[in-house]
Amino acid sequence: MKAPLHLGVAGLGTVGTGLLQLLASRREHLEQALGRQIRVTAVCARSRAKPRAASFDGAIWFDDPVKLAVDPAIDVFVELIGGDEGAARASVEAALAAGKHVVTANKALLAKHGLALARLAEKHNVALNFEAAVAGGIPVIKMLREALAANEVRRVYGILNGTCNFILTKMQNEHLAFADVLKEAQEKGYAEADPTFDIGGFDAAHKLALLTSLAFGTAVDCSQIRVEGIENITAGDIDAASDLGYRIKLLGMAEQTPTGVEARVNPVLVPKGATLAEVAGVTNSVAIDGDFVGTLLLVGPGAGSKPTASAVASDIVDIARGLVMPPFVHPSASLKPYKRAEAGLHQGSFYIRLAVEDRPGAMAAITRRMADESVSLESIVQRQSRHQAGATPPAAATVILVTHETTEDQIRRALDAIVRDGKLTGKPQMIRIEELE
Amino acid sequence: MKAPLHLGVAGLGTVGTGLLQLLASRREHLEQALGRQIRVTAVCARSRAKPRAASFDGAIWFDDPVKLAVDPAIDVFVELIGGDEGAARASVEAALAAGKHVVTANKALLAKHGLALARLAEKHNVALNFEAAVAGGIPVIKMLREALAANEVRRVYGILNGTCNFILTKMQNEHLAFADVLKEAQEKGYAEADPTFDIGGFDAAHKLALLTSLAFGTAVDCSQIRVEGIENITAGDIDAASDLGYRIKLLGMAEQTPTGVEARVNPVLVPKGATLAEVAGVTNSVAIDGDFVGTLLLVGPGAGSKPTASAVASDIVDIARGLVMPPFVHPSASLKPYKRAEAGLHQGSFYIRLAVEDRPGAMAAITRRMADESVSLESIVQRQSRHQAGATPPAAATVILVTHETTEDQIRRALDAIVRDGKLTGKPQMIRIEELE
Repeated sequence: MKAPLHLGVAGLGTVGTGLLQLLASRREHLEQALGRQIRVTAVCARSRAKPRAASFDGAIWFDDPVKLAVDPAIDVFVELIGGDEGAARASVEAALAAGKHVVTANKALLAKHGLALARLAEKHNVALNFEAAVAGGIPVIKMLREALAANEVRRVYGILNGTCNFILTKMQNEHLAFADVLKEAQEKGYAEADPTFDIGGFDAAHKLALLTSLAFGTAVDCSQIRVEGIENITAGDIDAASDLGYRIKLLGMAEQTPTGVEARVNPVLVPKGATLAEVAGVTNSVAIDGDFVGTLLLVGPGAGSKPTASAVASDIVDIARGLVMPPFVHPSASLKPYKRAEAGLHQGSFYIRLAVEDRPGAMAAITRRMADESVSLESIVQRQSRHQAGATPPAAATVILVTHETTEDQIRRALDAIVRDGKLTGKPQMIRIEELE
Repeated sequence: MKAPLHLGVAGLGTVGTGLLQLLASRREHLEQALGRQIRVTAVCARSRAKPRAASFDGAIWFDDPVKLAVDPAIDVFVELIGGDEGAARASVEAALAAGKHVVTANKALLAKHGLALARLAEKHNVALNFEAAVAGGIPVIKMLREALAANEVRRVYGILNGTCNFILTKMQNEHLAFADVLKEAQEKGYAEADPTFDIGGFDAAHKLALLTSLAFGTAVDCSQIRVEGIENITAGDIDAASDLGYRIKLLGMAEQTPTGVEARVNPVLVPKGATLAEVAGVTNSVAIDGDFVGTLLLVGPGAGSKPTASAVASDIVDIARGLVMPPFVHPSASLKPYKRAEAGLHQGSFYIRLAVEDRPGAMAAITRRMADESVSLESIVQRQSRHQAGATPPAAATVILVTHETTEDQIRRALDAIVRDGKLTGKPQMIRIEELE
């Protein structure tokens, strides 16, 4: 029997409590499988007295996570505090510098300081594991670091934010407006009081930044990701997409292009029947296209106390088995600076919704502007009028266009010209179509 | 830089060739990520002269895989010969006994001799990795051994045979008969000249035996799996299932029950819209239910030169990183003997198809027999008649029953009584319904 692995757990919220429960319930199983014990030797949280659903009897209590991080009694520092600065950053840096392995679920910390922390981990030859930071219980980090380590990744993409997927699924199934569903999500605890971080796509962008680095060997850089949220998706967009055979999903996608890596988070139209199109509610899903494996898709719980604890535990198990590698697969010194693909060169089809004055010549003006930019249209549908003919203000119609393959630049120029023509009654909506399988 | 990892590759068919191509194309990438080279130091195949799509220049040639397996120049023996006895078994045993790590794609060998080989690997403290043996490019072994190592697995199930899924998908989409689609699959090379191993469910059973052992800590024992193939699925069954809202899939499933582990391979009805129901063609899919993670689903290529080479390469990468563990997670001495669940206790709904003489009283007799065994029916549909009324032989009707929750035993007793009543014109069809999400 090898020596026990001693953990210091900082942060005893839902994930920390879930982890203590898991380690207690699977103690014998893990000891037998690993040939060594995993012990929670020390813990730290804001309040010692707060009632919790798990026991930490026998563990040394710390008030200061930085002191816990460097305590000689621990081998692994488990950071479940949260936040990209303050106690989380200070304690993780202290732990790595003291030669402790670190396990964390903190995507914001890694998206911001991942490269510097990776350098520190490599310098001290310790693990910096963060499976729980991306897609909760789905082991996508392990996929990229290990299972697909020998593949050249061409594309990684998925549904990375459960809040957005819950809102879009509910809008779709119940034909509700965005604002109404958001309110319900907030009441149910699926969305924060300030929902911007989720619905604006920023949470998904943090996760995508980590996946991009792992998939393409680039330095983590969140600022290079183009982000668009779901705030402007209307019930009408979802219905129109459905009539065309598509679902609307918020997708994070990073892909190798001739000019660099294009990473973006935005709503897209995905064909009904595609596995990603049918991923509903708070479930997450990640797909990886590799040159040898083809497409590998994972679907599972993207958040929650128990799935996240499962991911944290798998990181601990890897350390117990002696697995240590550079946090982003390649040594941080050899990670390439992020070379962002030239914007606007994306070739694809687009869905466009225009609110148009219902006057003769409006449609002719739109199609002429599209033709001027060589954008050819696959379909044009004029949907319901919001006002009776002859009403004041002038009657408005909704026009839905689907383009053939074209570049984003061409579409933007055509839309700018249409806007300048002054016949629209609202801002144009433009959503990419991704013909996923 | 650490010392290179020296491979001996035995078997240079499609997978072996794919592996050589992969290692050549990713040489620099792997060297940088692993901090050491992976070298193909020795190879062995039946014919040295046969034209191959990959070069093995610089590798020592062996005619005898057993000699290669024990050669002092290699660290890892990669067995891609195939077969559960003969050269494959002899060389793997020799390699393990000589203290070499072994990577193999050979499910038949492991399903038959897995426990003995695991003992040998543990005795010599070497790895025995077999990611490619189950579900091709899908890293389900890594999921069970590592990512979900801290979970108690409740159920593992999936589409494990691409040939069967190809046939069922094509029968479904084109309303074709089993025999016609099988013929096409054979012509395309998706099915063997003797297709029994695939369509009879035996290939899926081999894979399920390995998954069962990994998931439940039981000794590998293929003989304990109940197997039923797809030979008796008719186009009519698929159409009737579709009308009821289901797809028919060949599923391997192992689950913990109060009386032991129930492992079986059989056709089942899965609700349309469930992710597994929409997995089409030769694609495989595996789902794992764990107590902490919830349900994790993987979808990917189940066979083929390149996906299989990807899986073999990931096993090699793990060894290059120094990861060695008991092949079935728990030390083989602590694997429990397989305790098979009592048969017939499965609670669930069933689809039943009966070919019935179209005479007054036939339906009454059927429903009475069901009632005698306390089987309650959710729906009864009499589908098309195959003969005109008054024709000779007596007109036959197809009756489709869907039961409420009941046990398999009750259904079997009712069906036996119906058969004894002598009003059927063919063998009854009975298929489980699995209400998967």
